[in-house]
Amino acid sequence: MNAEPSNVAATHGPVRIVGAGLLGASIGLGLSAQGVPVTLSDASPTAQALARDVGAGAIARTEDAVPTLVVVAVPPDVAAQVVAGELRAYPGAVVTDVASVKSVILAELVAMDSLDLSRYVGSHPMAGRERSGAGAASADLFVGRPWVITTRAGLHPQALLAVRSLAVDLGAGPVQMTPAEHDDAVALVSHLPQLMASLTAGRLVEAPEAALGLAGQGLRDVTRIAASDPRLWSAILTGNAAAVGTHLRGVRDDLDGLLEALDRAAVDGPLALGAIAGMAGVISAGNDGAARIPGKHGGLRKRYSEVTVLVPDEPGELGRLFTEIGEIGVNIEDFQMEHATRQRVGMAIVSVIPASATTLEVALEERGWRVVAP
Amino acid sequence: MNAEPSNVAATHGPVRIVGAGLLGASIGLGLSAQGVPVTLSDASPTAQALARDVGAGAIARTEDAVPTLVVVAVPPDVAAQVVAGELRAYPGAVVTDVASVKSVILAELVAMDSLDLSRYVGSHPMAGRERSGAGAASADLFVGRPWVITTRAGLHPQALLAVRSLAVDLGAGPVQMTPAEHDDAVALVSHLPQLMASLTAGRLVEAPEAALGLAGQGLRDVTRIAASDPRLWSAILTGNAAAVGTHLRGVRDDLDGLLEALDRAAVDGPLALGAIAGMAGVISAGNDGAARIPGKHGGLRKRYSEVTVLVPDEPGELGRLFTEIGEIGVNIEDFQMEHATRQRVGMAIVSVIPASATTLEVALEERGWRVVAP
Repeated sequence: MNAEPSNVAATHGPVRIVGAGLLGASIGLGLSAQGVPVTLSDASPTAQALARDVGAGAIARTEDAVPTLVVVAVPPDVAAQVVAGELRAYPGAVVTDVASVKSVILAELVAMDSLDLSRYVGSHPMAGRERSGAGAASADLFVGRPWVITTRAGLHPQALLAVRSLAVDLGAGPVQMTPAEHDDAVALVSHLPQLMASLTAGRLVEAPEAALGLAGQGLRDVTRIAASDPRLWSAILTGNAAAVGTHLRGVRDDLDGLLEALDRAAVDGPLALGAIAGMAGVISAGNDGAARIPGKHGGLRKRYSEVTVLVPDEPGELGRLFTEIGEIGVNIEDFQMEHATRQRVGMAIVSVIPASATTLEVALEERGWRVVAP
Repeated sequence: MNAEPSNVAATHGPVRIVGAGLLGASIGLGLSAQGVPVTLSDASPTAQALARDVGAGAIARTEDAVPTLVVVAVPPDVAAQVVAGELRAYPGAVVTDVASVKSVILAELVAMDSLDLSRYVGSHPMAGRERSGAGAASADLFVGRPWVITTRAGLHPQALLAVRSLAVDLGAGPVQMTPAEHDDAVALVSHLPQLMASLTAGRLVEAPEAALGLAGQGLRDVTRIAASDPRLWSAILTGNAAAVGTHLRGVRDDLDGLLEALDRAAVDGPLALGAIAGMAGVISAGNDGAARIPGKHGGLRKRYSEVTVLVPDEPGELGRLFTEIGEIGVNIEDFQMEHATRQRVGMAIVSVIPASATTLEVALEERGWRVVAP
């Protein structure tokens, strides 16, 4: 997927990265590994030194060679100011930012005087981790992820090409959209799920311990991303307020319908007029929506068979299972574990191609594993 | 964890199971495997025969020995009628039901005349699968899961003991609660997350394809349980309408606060008065709530270190990774895969005890794996 290092360097020339957090340092690591000269600048001298120490590039100095590409990797609420400064400081450079909202940054830039915006291409790599900072950076952070490149009238074709090349060189798949299309898409597939996870988890703050003890995998899945950083997310959400508001208002309307149906059932009993239909409608719509999310290879659920194996929660057992699956010679396409509080065994759910499922089940049972009947 | 088969049989005597779906057939399989005589009854002759064929027990006949325990495993909207019929038909038997709502069933029973409710103990095993029916049944379905046993005044101590024994014999952990405590707990940890997942997924029904292409692991996690059965869930939700309504109203209040903050930001810009605080409050509360969910062993996140390895999406690679981890001699405590659309590698996140993390990283790198820097 990557171009030859020499080509990359020729395409980009020196790259200047402003903002040495997780994204900036990961971009620096990926480019440095391909021989591209990278300089790093961050308002925090400590963050800057950490990014240098992990190998993301050299600390920027005034005598540096003029960059051909500047990557602004700062929080969305300061991105426009930084982009403007870079466009003015390097009149020959292409400037991109990697913030997770796009329209508000462009609007702020358009409102400023005398900026050459034909060289500015807003972009957004759809990658992240639960940890932040250069210490969590990885040259592989973007591999296989979509990287949105925003297009608009008046953009210099070479600027667009430079940012597409950046994405491709880091292993990502470039996806072109307008800033408004991007903001609406991430409001729906990223910002809305974040808020729904946070709202669900927020209800647990005052829950009795005994209730939490009944929590299963469903609650864990729904609330996993609720552990996100409040400061970063406040900037993202307020920076995409209109689009997020539109989708959240859709949820509120559905939720009001649900509450009406629940109130009827609470007063007149479970078979109250319209109550069942109100519930079934929301669950059915959820079925339809969930079915539209592309899986691995665009359709994981249908492509593989699941073999479920009970694994005692003792040292070495899961490792032994995988070692033996390797010996049996069946390829694992996907894998997940299910377990709950106070559990002495886990359920290992191994996805394999349908033709291998029976072979694997029989071979595992012969080796003494307890395979759950499909 | 299980008693000796002979003791089990002595405790339970013959067990009659009414309802041969996933739960009924799984209970039958688990008890049959321990030598307990089980008879099965279902309104559907086909379901009844399927449960028999998977080994869950014998089809009930009029000449059967009188059961000492009856397990009613039918949907919540018909559970009370079936429980009443069994209490009348077997005046010496303990009767339990395993429906996922408890107060409404008890209230229906109390409203009926001349029932000996001292022999009725409502219960709820916190176990399930995405597939339903006896074909998906497993003797191990309840192993390690909580099984709520509802208590109340006037209950015969032997009845309570019989249902506790049932749970323990099937490998579950019995948890005693009142019906109201149970209903409020499951409203919060099971029914609310189901609705939040469904509401989120429902917004995707009319989403542009391009937006869905940006979906990452967060959206997949939040919406995984949105693929649930609308008919079963309608009965569960209307059967627990008051408790679900209370928690959902809490969400609606938080959501209204969010919408107000988003509207301010949309009109007056991201730094509008109160907008950031409104967002940060919801995300922070989500942090606090999510931190209260017990993990595996009561605290997975802190107890293990994660080692992240890039795995090419090619046959044999994941199997080879696990085989080699087995050879290295490090025990895998937990595992998850991360991947996205059009990805050529996956990220295998292996949880190990902190003392083994560095050993594993070094050994995997020596063997040529690409370990993502922690």
